[in-house]
Amino acid sequence: MARAEHVDSAALARLLGGWRADDMPLPHALADALDELVAGNVLVEGAALPPQRALAAALGVSRGTVAEAYAELAARGRLTSRQGSGSRVRRDRSAGGGDHVVDGRLASFGSTRRLAELDLSSGALPALSLVREAVSAVDLCELDVYLAGDGYYAAGLPRLRAVVAEQYRAQGLPTEADQILVTSGSQQAVWLCASSLVTPGDEVLVEEPGYRGAIEAFRTAGARLTAVPVRADGLDLDHLDRVARRAALLYCQPAAHNPTGISLPAAARERLNEIVGRHGLLTIEDRSCADLILDDRGVRPPLPDPPGPGLVIRIGTASKLLWGGLRVGWIRAERPMIKRLTQAKAALDLAAPVLDQMVTAELLTQADRARRERTRRLRAHLADAVAVLAERRPAWRWTPPSGGTALWIDTGTDAVALAERARRRGVLVTAGPAFSPANAQRSRIRLPFWRPVDQFAQAVDLLE
Amino acid sequence: MARAEHVDSAALARLLGGWRADDMPLPHALADALDELVAGNVLVEGAALPPQRALAAALGVSRGTVAEAYAELAARGRLTSRQGSGSRVRRDRSAGGGDHVVDGRLASFGSTRRLAELDLSSGALPALSLVREAVSAVDLCELDVYLAGDGYYAAGLPRLRAVVAEQYRAQGLPTEADQILVTSGSQQAVWLCASSLVTPGDEVLVEEPGYRGAIEAFRTAGARLTAVPVRADGLDLDHLDRVARRAALLYCQPAAHNPTGISLPAAARERLNEIVGRHGLLTIEDRSCADLILDDRGVRPPLPDPPGPGLVIRIGTASKLLWGGLRVGWIRAERPMIKRLTQAKAALDLAAPVLDQMVTAELLTQADRARRERTRRLRAHLADAVAVLAERRPAWRWTPPSGGTALWIDTGTDAVALAERARRRGVLVTAGPAFSPANAQRSRIRLPFWRPVDQFAQAVDLLE
Repeated sequence: MARAEHVDSAALARLLGGWRADDMPLPHALADALDELVAGNVLVEGAALPPQRALAAALGVSRGTVAEAYAELAARGRLTSRQGSGSRVRRDRSAGGGDHVVDGRLASFGSTRRLAELDLSSGALPALSLVREAVSAVDLCELDVYLAGDGYYAAGLPRLRAVVAEQYRAQGLPTEADQILVTSGSQQAVWLCASSLVTPGDEVLVEEPGYRGAIEAFRTAGARLTAVPVRADGLDLDHLDRVARRAALLYCQPAAHNPTGISLPAAARERLNEIVGRHGLLTIEDRSCADLILDDRGVRPPLPDPPGPGLVIRIGTASKLLWGGLRVGWIRAERPMIKRLTQAKAALDLAAPVLDQMVTAELLTQADRARRERTRRLRAHLADAVAVLAERRPAWRWTPPSGGTALWIDTGTDAVALAERARRRGVLVTAGPAFSPANAQRSRIRLPFWRPVDQFAQAVDLLE
Repeated sequence: MARAEHVDSAALARLLGGWRADDMPLPHALADALDELVAGNVLVEGAALPPQRALAAALGVSRGTVAEAYAELAARGRLTSRQGSGSRVRRDRSAGGGDHVVDGRLASFGSTRRLAELDLSSGALPALSLVREAVSAVDLCELDVYLAGDGYYAAGLPRLRAVVAEQYRAQGLPTEADQILVTSGSQQAVWLCASSLVTPGDEVLVEEPGYRGAIEAFRTAGARLTAVPVRADGLDLDHLDRVARRAALLYCQPAAHNPTGISLPAAARERLNEIVGRHGLLTIEDRSCADLILDDRGVRPPLPDPPGPGLVIRIGTASKLLWGGLRVGWIRAERPMIKRLTQAKAALDLAAPVLDQMVTAELLTQADRARRERTRRLRAHLADAVAVLAERRPAWRWTPPSGGTALWIDTGTDAVALAERARRRGVLVTAGPAFSPANAQRSRIRLPFWRPVDQFAQAVDLLE
């Protein structure tokens, strides 16, 4: 969304760094270096390279060198060149694996992710343009205050903790700054909860389907996982009530659930709360996608606090609303729990970086504006995507999502085989078992709808 | 080192955020909010608050409100006010615990750290002024390239990986960018190695004394720890040779060892290398402090690669050279090991933040300038500190450090009791057992020497 018309030549020169190699001709070395940027996903699918003359000037080489390098890349299937529109990055279907990871399909889950022409395996979004503005306007006087110290704030920058607490208060949950622990994205928040709160052998309730990063974190912590189904109206609360008594912990996403996009209705939220309170069930409410709203009902409030104190731990993130590259998430809990989790984080990596916390604190004061921007764009993409599917895949079924960036589609067929056929055609999608604690959901795919509609339609055509 | 003359009033207003409280008078609410910034270590010892008139203007309150708030803070022992020099932050010895952590004494190690007038418990430095320059000059065109994608680079930003690899090459160790994994500081690098490479019950060799964060990480991973003594000339290699055969792994800091500051001489480095190769001993060379050089022999090169491939894994960081608040560290290893550790990091927190990596990449291209700056300042502080100690503590003994930010002092007495007496007087120092795998080193303290000499002298006077 913040993509420039074409990649700036000076910026590209910096990215290329020391690209010259003693043992090969300049055009070949330049082609190799550009190839690495494509393979590493720094230059993304569709990115327009600078005009040859501009890049040549920035690199201090002849235009002929750049022309040869572009031609070599085109021959390797890495570039498409069209008269008038310049050279654009293209991912060849035979390209090797990169090291880029995304939620829903971490590299750690054993799949070797391959780069493809059309990568719809991730629901993660590009940055809002607000992020660029905030970075360019970092308050150097505020920074000076931090630079004078050693830069370690174990629980997070006080200003960010205060801004996040204010967000919870605005959503109806009384919260003070010292109830917030800043983490490296919501993945670290989940990991800290799993490693700190689960004793090997504990029974942990997770959603079926659910967020893969959490399923893996609890499994790594030694939990025995019990699946609670997610229906068309959200978590199956009758089922939950039956299994809650013997469980040590529940992990759930009542708002804009990943991967289904379903939000629990208000009455069901209250019943969930009653069940949690009655069983004294320690509950992690992951609100990572709660900012990405598609329907007219606005951001769902967090679960109210049940009578038992400290039963609900909330997880949030700036990755969905603003940008994943900030790597800022948080945990909201009672003070003793925050202390305990802060110690666990300190042993991992001491503290979160200051600069990203400054930028995030500034942007969260404009969270409503950011939410409107995300909602406006996502709704437009969703309408386009639904129209494409109605025409080309009339047999596919899904529950209209209330939030998120993807459709959770029942293909009515073996979706694992479907995804594998698509992969061979250069389209990456994630099939249902990746979101299942029991490797179920085999007829499902998660289909992100936020790409330009022509890319989406092209991908759908290849999914058969 | 980057401290402004006094804290900027506009910056302070931002830090204070929503400081007004419905239920208390403005001066009292302002005093409370300022108090929190002091307790949270955002306003550090000695920081000069803005003139009353300036802060009043920035907050939109009367000067009288600010005057009352300052007076209340002074009454609480949080400020010293002197005619002409304004109001400066002071840490009262009875102040409550903060959540600030430092290396060598993580919050996770069970000590409740208390804020004090003179905090010498950390060897971590304020930022070099270069950091401010780099933040204010972030290349927005380069950033645009990243913002157009989802911002997840599992192994690190390609440009930073290339710059770090270039550093190793310049130090004589052939290294490609894909042999680098970017981590959240060297603490996460150590943690990843410990959790990925140690099987519970493995014997791990650690230094006595050594880096506490590593000792704890290996212990948490289930290792049985065996101590290898560090002598006046570095790691005891005869001892190492005797215990190496049965060990699974060695963790060591051959250059500017923490806490002693000792660097292994060149001949001993070669012998260490020979021992590692002969026993096929997997070795983690932590070079976190290697940039902070005090003697005339320059940065010590990394251990050469022994004949056995992949035996030595190197850890580095930007925290010492540039600033800990960037939270950028890295691991240098062979490609298969980097792949394995990248997967482990992805499960923890997906990836490192983009902005800090951009700033660090830019600054590491000026690493020589940064090293000269650090060395120049640290040498001056060391000379001052040695003069103070020669006069006031002639019985204390230490080996002159070749690098680092602290003296490893043999007090000739019970240093744990000494540190406890000092704490009651408002001076924090870390006693030897914090750096020992066996809770030994009871006559030692680690005394950072990088503070202004009057503070250092004042602390030494209270250490008795």
